[in-house]
Amino acid sequence: MSISMYSASVPVIVRTLSNLQSWFDKAEAHAQAKKFEPAVLLGARLAPDMLPFTKQVQIACDSAKFAVARLSGVDAPKFEDTETSFADLRLRIASTLEYIRSVPAAKIDGTENKDIVVPRRDGSMTLKGEVYLKHYSLPNLYFHVMTAYALLRHNGVDLGKGDFLGTLS
Amino acid sequence: MSISMYSASVPVIVRTLSNLQSWFDKAEAHAQAKKFEPAVLLGARLAPDMLPFTKQVQIACDSAKFAVARLSGVDAPKFEDTETSFADLRLRIASTLEYIRSVPAAKIDGTENKDIVVPRRDGSMTLKGEVYLKHYSLPNLYFHVMTAYALLRHNGVDLGKGDFLGTLS
Repeated sequence: MSISMYSASVPVIVRTLSNLQSWFDKAEAHAQAKKFEPAVLLGARLAPDMLPFTKQVQIACDSAKFAVARLSGVDAPKFEDTETSFADLRLRIASTLEYIRSVPAAKIDGTENKDIVVPRRDGSMTLKGEVYLKHYSLPNLYFHVMTAYALLRHNGVDLGKGDFLGTLS
Repeated sequence: MSISMYSASVPVIVRTLSNLQSWFDKAEAHAQAKKFEPAVLLGARLAPDMLPFTKQVQIACDSAKFAVARLSGVDAPKFEDTETSFADLRLRIASTLEYIRSVPAAKIDGTENKDIVVPRRDGSMTLKGEVYLKHYSLPNLYFHVMTAYALLRHNGVDLGKGDFLGTLS
């Protein structure tokens, strides 16, 4: 037995985005308890030249979507990045998950050596499917999801590592 | 072809810890340029009830070490958590990497269904090797490495996502 490209990607991505979504309740409750607008959290940054919370969630969704789209070859929906509330961001994650769950495992399995073209600011980069997944796509997803976590945590939202990892047993 | 337990774990772990280590130069340069003690960064926290930078690096190393030790069954070295400088933390990462690189691939391959016992504060948890790696061990590693990144970035160190992902092509 060994790990397939599908089992190495989709369950991890679905779990990570679902965990992210689950933090929004605590974020909204915190804003309510402290009597500030939830939008303050949406605009929060860890540094002036880092992207704010909303953008971290949008990019996390896109990172997840593109991983599945590029490996599977199944077109992904476009999103307009117009979210302005936690409710909007919940929908964004739900729509992303809907697409990801719709892609058959057979379209992703066997893509270990598929050439994946990754557009970047300074020209595109081509990686093999397995390298793309392990060293670009999943780390990139964790980067943005974890930045979102750090932003909420830094701003007093009652989260712990258990919320990041999700239920396990 | 498919992904093996070794290829899904060790190259990702080695890369992630190596990237973490590479940020220390920029962190020290920043402290020097701004004329503060590097130890200020080592004690930095994102929230009062989060662990400081040094501890994030120590736990990242342990998370990496335990992943390899539990999957392979090869005993890992013990570390005393006595690091008080970036130099000490570089050594900690180097020692951890030395152990990880010493474990033969054959000891990790085939552990998809091996029962892995994870000690936790509220009792141990048993997960299959593949689940342990994908949903506990690697996310846990990213959690601590990314918290270390966020701490440096929040404190003005000149890092970007390229530093987090490392060289790719």
